[in-house]
Parts: sequence; C-alpha cells; structure tokens
Amino acid sequence: MRVTLSALDTSETFFKPLVVLELARDVKEETRKWLEKKINDKKKNGGAQLLIRPLVEKCEEQTLESQNLYLVGASTVRLLLGAESVGLVKECNDNAMRAFTYETRQNFKGFSDDNDDFLTMAECQFIVKHELENLRARDEKMIPGYPQAKLYPGKSILRRLLTYGLVTQIFPLHDSEALKKLESTWYNRFKLKYQPLDGIRTYFGETIALYFGFLEYFTFALIPMALIGLPYYVFDWEDYDKYVIFASFNLIWSTVILEVWKRGCALMTYRWGTLLMKRQFEEPRPGFHGVLGINPITGREEPLYSSFKRQLRIYLVSLPFVCLCLYFSLYVMTIYFDLEAWAQDVHRESHFPELTNVLLFVPSIVYAVVIEVMNRLYRFAAEFLTSWENHRLESAYQNHLVLKVLVFNFLNCFASLFYIAFVMKDMKLLRQSLATLLITSQILNQIVETFLPYWLQRKHGLRVKKKVQALKADVDVTLYEQIILEKEKGTYLGTFDDYLELFLQFGYVSLFSCVYPLAAAFAVLNNLSEINSDALKMCKVFKRPFAEPSSSIGVWQLAFETMSVISVVTNCALIGMSPQLNAVFPDSKTDLILIVVAAEHALLALKFVLAFVIPDKPREIQVKLAKLEFESVEALKQQHIKLVAESLKEEGKEEEKNTT
Amino acid sequence: MRVTLSALDTSETFFKPLVVLELARDVKEETRKWLEKKINDKKKNGGAQLLIRPLVEKCEEQTLESQNLYLVGASTVRLLLGAESVGLVKECNDNAMRAFTYETRQNFKGFSDDNDDFLTMAECQFIVKHELENLRARDEKMIPGYPQAKLYPGKSILRRLLTYGLVTQIFPLHDSEALKKLESTWYNRFKLKYQPLDGIRTYFGETIALYFGFLEYFTFALIPMALIGLPYYVFDWEDYDKYVIFASFNLIWSTVILEVWKRGCALMTYRWGTLLMKRQFEEPRPGFHGVLGINPITGREEPLYSSFKRQLRIYLVSLPFVCLCLYFSLYVMTIYFDLEAWAQDVHRESHFPELTNVLLFVPSIVYAVVIEVMNRLYRFAAEFLTSWENHRLESAYQNHLVLKVLVFNFLNCFASLFYIAFVMKDMKLLRQSLATLLITSQILNQIVETFLPYWLQRKHGLRVKKKVQALKADVDVTLYEQIILEKEKGTYLGTFDDYLELFLQFGYVSLFSCVYPLAAAFAVLNNLSEINSDALKMCKVFKRPFAEPSSSIGVWQLAFETMSVISVVTNCALIGMSPQLNAVFPDSKTDLILIVVAAEHALLALKFVLAFVIPDKPREIQVKLAKLEFESVEALKQQHIKLVAESLKEEGKEEEKNTT
Repeated sequence: MRVTLSALDTSETFFKPLVVLELARDVKEETRKWLEKKINDKKKNGGAQLLIRPLVEKCEEQTLESQNLYLVGASTVRLLLGAESVGLVKECNDNAMRAFTYETRQNFKGFSDDNDDFLTMAECQFIVKHELENLRARDEKMIPGYPQAKLYPGKSILRRLLTYGLVTQIFPLHDSEALKKLESTWYNRFKLKYQPLDGIRTYFGETIALYFGFLEYFTFALIPMALIGLPYYVFDWEDYDKYVIFASFNLIWSTVILEVWKRGCALMTYRWGTLLMKRQFEEPRPGFHGVLGINPITGREEPLYSSFKRQLRIYLVSLPFVCLCLYFSLYVMTIYFDLEAWAQDVHRESHFPELTNVLLFVPSIVYAVVIEVMNRLYRFAAEFLTSWENHRLESAYQNHLVLKVLVFNFLNCFASLFYIAFVMKDMKLLRQSLATLLITSQILNQIVETFLPYWLQRKHGLRVKKKVQALKADVDVTLYEQIILEKEKGTYLGTFDDYLELFLQFGYVSLFSCVYPLAAAFAVLNNLSEINSDALKMCKVFKRPFAEPSSSIGVWQLAFETMSVISVVTNCALIGMSPQLNAVFPDSKTDLILIVVAAEHALLALKFVLAFVIPDKPREIQVKLAKLEFESVEALKQQHIKLVAESLKEEGKEEEKNTT
Repeated sequence: MRVTLSALDTSETFFKPLVVLELARDVKEETRKWLEKKINDKKKNGGAQLLIRPLVEKCEEQTLESQNLYLVGASTVRLLLGAESVGLVKECNDNAMRAFTYETRQNFKGFSDDNDDFLTMAECQFIVKHELENLRARDEKMIPGYPQAKLYPGKSILRRLLTYGLVTQIFPLHDSEALKKLESTWYNRFKLKYQPLDGIRTYFGETIALYFGFLEYFTFALIPMALIGLPYYVFDWEDYDKYVIFASFNLIWSTVILEVWKRGCALMTYRWGTLLMKRQFEEPRPGFHGVLGINPITGREEPLYSSFKRQLRIYLVSLPFVCLCLYFSLYVMTIYFDLEAWAQDVHRESHFPELTNVLLFVPSIVYAVVIEVMNRLYRFAAEFLTSWENHRLESAYQNHLVLKVLVFNFLNCFASLFYIAFVMKDMKLLRQSLATLLITSQILNQIVETFLPYWLQRKHGLRVKKKVQALKADVDVTLYEQIILEKEKGTYLGTFDDYLELFLQFGYVSLFSCVYPLAAAFAVLNNLSEINSDALKMCKVFKRPFAEPSSSIGVWQLAFETMSVISVVTNCALIGMSPQLNAVFPDSKTDLILIVVAAEHALLALKFVLAFVIPDKPREIQVKLAKLEFESVEALKQQHIKLVAESLKEEGKEEEKNTT
C-alpha cells in the first residue's frame, strides 16, 4: 500500500511546506476548491499568491484522516515581498537595523538572490500566516457552500473560517534538524550556562525568546537575594537591624532589576529587529460577532457590537462573578485556618509529637494544592467570560483577561499570608505557610505543566509511529509521519501562564522577604529547573507555535513593578511589627510607627526617582535609533529640496529677470 | 528729509515682510552680502530661497540705527512648500486632519491657488524662521569676513551667526489689525467669559495658546474648591469631619482635573493639528560649543563636548551650588522665624495691641518679598549654570533648568510652611503665614511681570513715536515706526515663568488645603486678573514671539501630578495631627496613626488607579487617530499589492505554464 504524498511528489525542490492547514472533516468540495484558489490566486485578484498542496493526493481508508490536511508554502520572492509587508527589520551591510524592502534587498546582510536562508523558517511561517490572515473578502457575500457563513468586504476570510469551524487549525511545521541542534545547546546537557537566546528566537520567535530571556535574567537577579538570605537561615539571625538591611536591599534591588531588564530587553530586541518594527493595524479577533453597522474607523460595513452592551456584560455579570470568586477564595481560606487550628490542637495534645509534627504541614500543603486547582479553574472561567464579553480587539481581550486573572490569583495566593501577617501577627506560622505554599506550588506547576503532558505526548507518539510504520510500504514518509504526529499535539497557548507563575513567585519572594529570606533561594532552584522543563515543553510537548514579534514583555513589566511597590509597603509594615524593633522603642509606639512610615515613603520616593532616572534604553541603542531617525529626516529633506526646485522653477525664472 | 524704505518701495504687492533680522552694528559689508545671497539663493544651491530686503535703502544719519535691519518674506508657493517641510497639519475637506503636502493642496479646507490666507501669519513666520534656521553651511569653512568664526558642513548658519553675535536678533512682526481684533475679544472688556483660544493660537501659536488654555481651565477647576472652602471661613468650621471631607474632595478633585486636562488638551491640539505633528529632528542649541569630532548620529564632523566633562560640571559645580542655595534658603527661613518670634514678643508686651497686631504680619510679608527676590536671583544663576554645563540639545538644557528651578522654588516657598506645620505644629501661624505668602507673591508677580514692563514700554513707545514723527516728512512710514518700536521691546522668554507661578500657586492651594480652605478662592481671584495681565503682556509689552507648535504642556503635567501626590501626604498628615481628630482617639494614638496611614495609602492607590483608568485621549480623538492610521496602512497595502504584482509577473507566468 502506497501513500501518495502530493507535497513530496510535485517538484519538491521548489515547494517547501511551511504551514499546515487543517479543514473540518466534512467541508464541502466547493468550499475546498474556492479556498485553494483564493490562496493560490494572484494578489491583484484578491488572492494570497501562496502555494498550497493537499498532503495526500489519493485518499485511501487509512489516510482518510489526512485528506483534510493542506500544506502551504511560498516562493522565495513571495516570501521576501511578504517580509516587506509585515515590516520585518533586518541588519544591513553597514550594521544598522532597517525595515526590509524588496527594492533595497541587496543592502541587507547575508542576502543574495540565490540564498534561501536569508529569512529564517520561523519568519517564513510568520509571513505565510500573516498573508493567510490578510486574505480578505472582496465581492463574496458568503463562504461558498455555506450560505449562513457571511463574509464582509475587507474582512479576513481565514478568521471567518476559523469562527465557523470550517478550518479547525493552522500550525507551522517543526524543522527536526534545527530543533535537534537547538535542543542540544539548550537543555539536553544539564549544565549551568546561558541559554541560546538568539537560537530560541530564530526557531520560536521573539515573544518566546523574550520569556526565556526574562526567566534567565530574573533567576540571575534572584541569586544575590538568595545568597544574602542564606546566612539568615543558617545562623538563625533574628536581629531587627539585619532584617532592615535585608529588606532595604531587597526593595532597592527589585526596583533596579526591573529597570535594568528594560534596558537589556531593548538591547536584545534591537538586535532582533523587533524594537524598530512598526505595530500592525489591529483586526477584530476571531470569534468576535455583532450586528452589521458602519465601522467609524474604516468606514466599512462590518459586524459591530455596542460598547454599552459590553459594559453591561462586564459590570453586571463578570464583575459580580469575580467578586463571588474572590469571596469563595476567602471562604476557602477560613476553612484552611480552621484546619490549621485543628492540626495545632492535635499536635499540642498528641503523645507522639514527632508524628504529629508532620501533620502541622498538611493543612498548608492541602491549601496550596487547592489554591492551584482554584487558580486553574478560575482561569477557564475568566477566559470564558472575557470571550463572552465579546471584545473586538485581541488587545482589549487580553487586558480584561489579565486584569481578571491577576486580581484573583493575587488574592487567592496571598490573602492567607496577609491575614497571618497583619491580623494574626504570627510570624512563625507566616514563615511556615509561605514556605509550604511556595514549594508546593512550584512542584505542582512543574508536574502539571511539563512532565504530565510530556509523558502523555510520548505515549501518543509511540502509538502514531506504530500506526505509520504499519502503513508505510516502500516510500519514506517522514513528512507524513511528522505532520500526523504534530497535528495531535497540544497547542501552546502563549506565555501568559508562564509569566503568571513567575509573577506569583516574585510575590512570594518579595512581599514577605524580610520574614523568610530563604524564599529567594527556593525560587532560584525552581527557576533553574523551570528553564529546562519549559524548554522541554516547547520542543517536545507542544505544536510549534507561530513566531510572534514583540519588543518587550508588555503588561508584565507593569505587573512586576506594581508588585514591587506593594512589597515596599508590606515589608515596611512587617519590620515595624517586629518585636526586636518594638523593643528599641519601649515607651513610644507612636514614634516607631512614624519612623517606619517615613522610611516607607522615602523608599517609595526613591523607587520612583530610580525608575525615572534610569533611562529605559541604553545609550548605545538611543544613538542607533537617533541615527535611523536622522537618516529618514535627511532623506525627506533631499526629497523636499527636489520638490522645491521643481515647484519654484517658474517663479525663480521670473525673479531672475527682476533682479537682472 | 525722506526715509527710503526699500521694503515699501520695491513691488510691495508681492513682498510682505514677515520677519525682522537685525545684524550687529559693525558687521562687514562682505558678510552682509554673503548672508543676503544665502537667504535669497536657490535651495539646490544651498540657499533658503526666501526674499530679503534691507529696511532702509539709503542710509542717513537719523536712520543709521535702522541700516542693520532686514526684512525677510517669502512667496506664497515657497511658504506652502515650507509648510510641508515643517510638517504642518491642516484640516482637509473631509474634516480629517492631515499633514499638508504641496501636491495634495487642493484637498485642504480653505485652500485655493489665489488665496493667501490659507496659512496664518504666525504659521508663515514660523516657516520662515524654520527655513532660516535650516540654512546650512556647505563648503564654506568660515563666515566670510570673520575667519575665526568657523562653519561646519551641514550645521545651521544662523545659529552660528547668533553664537558669534553677528546677528543680534530675529523676530516676527506684529500684525496691528489682527492684534487689535484679538485684543478686543480677549481682554479689553473686563467681562467673565471664555478666552478666544483659537484666536490666540492663530496669532501667537500653540504653545502660548495652551498656556492660556491651561490657565483658564485651572481657574475654572479651582472654583469648586473655592466655593466649598468659603463656608469653612465664613462659619469658622473647625470640625475634623468637615476638614476630612474637604481634604478628600480636594485630593480626588486635583487628580481628576489633571487627568481631564490631558483629554481637553488632546481635543484642542487635535483641532490645531499639533497632536498629529511629527517631532522634528533636534539640532544643537545655539551657544553649544566643543572640540571637533565625529557625531555618532549624523556621521559628520562637528563640535562635540564630552559627556564626562559635562557630568563633572554638573556634579562638581552645579550640584554643590544648588545645595548651597538650598542651605542659604533654609538659613533665611530661620531668620524669618526669629523675626516672627520677635514680632510676637513685641505684640504680647505691647500696650497698643491694635497697632502691633499689624506688626504680626510684617515678618511674613517681608519673607514673602525675600522669597520672590531669591527665586528671581536663583533663576538667573540656574540659567547661567545650565548654559555653562553646555548641553547639546535644547531639550536637555530645558530639563536640567526645570529640575534646578523646581527643586529650589519648592523648598524656598514651602520649607517654612512645612516647618510650621510639622515641627512647630502651630496651625494658626501656618494659616497666617500661608495667606501672607500666597497673597504677597501674587501681588508682586503681577506688578513685576506685567505692570512695570507695561509702564516702561509705554514711556519708551512715546519717545520713539516723537522721534519718528520728527523724522518723517512726506511719506507714511508706519512700517518703519512699527519696526523701530518693536525691535526695542523685550523678548518674551517662553511660558516657563508663567507655568512656574501656577505651579507654586497649586502648591499653596493644595499642600495645606485642609488648614486654609480659603486659598483656592484667592487663587481664583488672582487667576482671573492674571489672565488679563498676561494677555496685556503678550499683546503690548513684548515683541511678538515666534509661534511654537506643541501638543501638550509637557513637563508641567508631570510637575503638577507630583505636587498633587505630595499634597495627599501632607494633607493626611495634617488631618492626623488635628486636635479634633486626636480627641476621638484619646487613648490610642497608635490606632489613629495607623488609620491615617491606611487612608493615605488608599488615597494614593486610588489616584494611581484613576490616572490609569481615565484614558488620556477622548474616545472621539482615539477614533480619529485610528482612522488616520488605517488610512495610511491601507495606502501602504495598495502600494504593496502593486509591487507584488510587478515583482511576481515573471514568476506568475512560469507558474501558469506549469499548471496548464
């Protein structure tokens, strides 16, 4: 039995499959043909001018599930033109970064007409995706074969197809060789070394590379805190002055590292070209629906959803729901405290204190697990609600989702700690609870996020391999096997959860740092293994994600900065409550509070001054950006001089006559 | 005796004088000719292609002083081309704002080829100034006639001439008719009404119109505070709960008004076109000097000044000097307190308490005058120092100047109040001192800034008039008279001092608002007259300033916001100290402090949330901006489709062959 792979058959030399498009199983032939034609058609006819092939030409029973798979590719010239239209920024021969244009292609480093490696595979895939998404309806009023699936002129066809479920997924192909190379430098040998960020960027794109860059940076930045925190644990230091020093160091340090990260990030994204990349005009997100109206921005007829209705949904449904969840989370917290009290009672009255000593940790551990479960459940609910709010733009959707998730996770994770610290004022319990929460959540995260999916993935992979081996006869069908394997893998849903995990970790480390200096050390240990498990996740567990250009970690910078402001307040309050410090002011508690408040204000002011004084971009980058600006201004000026010369030619002649 | 006004003589119909250029008295003929030629010469020959005439052709004894005056103008087409090169934004026929281009001129509202009113006179003057400043050296190595005055290729000639003192000044001419019209709607009738902001903008440009807009807005915004504050004074309310209400209202109010201003400002500057105007590439400021080197940005040889040397000057000279001044200011404050104590002693021991009651106010008044004098002296010193620091760019110069001046003025004006409030804890003295400082400084300011110069100016004006009348014989020389009059007027040094005055007033009103609710009422009264006196100053006292496009009040927004943050802290502290509130917590001062601190934190958090939640631009403007962005993206896309069609023509043909 022979699998006829059309992608391999027809002139393989010039068709390199980049992206896989999976249609729904029951899509009509008419729709299929229309879509193929659209993708293949010339740009001026409203097509994408890309290359598309079905994975298998002839459909037999075993390959039935593959008949809905299409491979999309593009010619080199088409990709170069696409690079211009997405605004890709590349390094020129004079070492400056400039937006790529097809006309000036010879000025770019590494470009030659017979060189296909100028664009990385990830870039090519991003371009193909961009071109597919930019395939727009012209005069079609509906998707052929599906009269109820309306199309609107100027709107993305692919997003409509995804909304109606006619296209089930679209994903880029892995490049096994490059992946193997990347893996070997990234995580295969368990050694302490820098990650190959440039390599990650080349393979996975900037957004993911930035996450790994931040993870690495953050881990390094935690090391000084961990080192300084260790002796507090080892020597059981309890002097208030030492705690004050540690906390002050922490607070300044956390400001400085966040500011320095911005600079490092600018340096990196300049090199990658995304710092200079222009933001693209934002389209409605797939799934957005509404009644037909005139968009005030584009002036075109398209589905609109009234902002008032959305506000109603947000304030009358989402907000109460979030409040309810918060209340529930606090209720669970009280149960935890009851459990804690019960455990301590048992321990106190027990005849085997060695045995019940372990019991003391049980409530915290259970509570940590419950917190994780609640976070994950809430995550789904928040996604459902935010999507139901029907935001038009992806950015608005993301903002509302992030806000919902951050508020809940913050309260869910830290409410009990705040209660222990400032209401119960039990520092011993705080330390124990903090340690248990931090360590349990870290262990859980690693298991749920990486090892469980990896194990499932491996099992599934073996099954597919067997199936394909049974199928194949006399032709090498690695591509076929690869696609069948990859299409079943989970989709990596973006860096949101990874950043969230780091954010909560940052909270555990900094909010109560002066009570539990060891937290930083645990965070460092966790992150060292996290780097490896996340890398494994990216390379092995999930489908390859589309490269997504980005120039910073976005809203997370703000979230981390807010956390570091809150931690100034909590740490100052903790120090003010420490019995050692209270012993220094035996008579006048008022003076103590005033001093602590003054110190807190001074620290906050210092933080803002630091954030203001440290430039967001290193001088080197500033100069380079100014250089580019100067260049474009000069070019404009030259153009203008020419224009003036032409426009004033007549007038000039007259004047010359006058003066002579 | 006849004055030969060349500007009036030669074909007046097509030469409208816009800008006056005054050379130094002893400039060599050679230099004069060269400069004239440069200004007149064609753009492609490195000239400015403007029109220039000497004010008087023949030079007689009485008109000797006028022989260095040149009038600069430009043809209508030249001005339109200049409007394109400065990036002027104008309203189109479809009511959208777009950058003006000569090619698309017919699309703009109010444009027709025979209409000279499309550009306002202020815009024309701005364009001429821009073109003069953009007159750049090509192969000239020095200014002809002055071998020591070096020129560098690509550097502004005019800035060099100003630096070497060969050009003494350059200023735009008033337009008497338009000015009279503006005056009549602005301040001539003392009635309460909105200012003609659009008219001010047309005549004086956006920066000045924005100042007056802010002044007006700020005055209106103070009215609610003044109204709520009045009954506190009238009924002598001293209940803590009322103070708390007033202070809370104040704090929220000050945040809201600053945020709302941003929106109003965006609305205004969108209408004026400056919101969309692109920032121009910044040139070195006149007066900047250094040794020859390669500029890393432009790649050209030009004077550079090492940043290290500048840092040395800043940290080893400027910083100690500022600290010294701050110390001196504090020293003067102690003298004031001695005086105050002495006056109170005298009053207490006096046999005529009615008489010595007046004496109680004397120290405050004297101190207020001293503060004003010190502020003004320091201003000069700060300018000298900042200019000596030799900043390359005007923006860096301004930032360093603003920082120096703000820090000193803040301490100088408010240190005594802080001391009285938080060290002496004498609320009665605080109220008295605050009132005296506020009122004295306001009166002083109005006299020194406006009425004194106005009086001097009038005296001088009469003198000139007489002189010109004696001179003139049979020709109407209004232009001659106007120029001679205007050239002697003072130069308006920008809105810095005006904003500074408002900033300090905002401090007086908000920092201790809960102690002296009447401050807002005084501020409102002062501002109502300030609007008129500032208008008078602009129209009568000073030379017409060049219009300066700007899209916001810049650094002052930040300064006002910082002040409102500080005022949250001071007001909370004051309320916490109030005896009424202390009476509520007789036993536990600690609880009181904790509550006040918690409230302060809540207020600060609320401020930040408000600042974050209120969008900086009204929705209407956001939509308009998005529309423009969409337009340019669409245009690019169309261009791209054409490019793809051309580039892939060959390939397409081949493919068609393949498929058929």
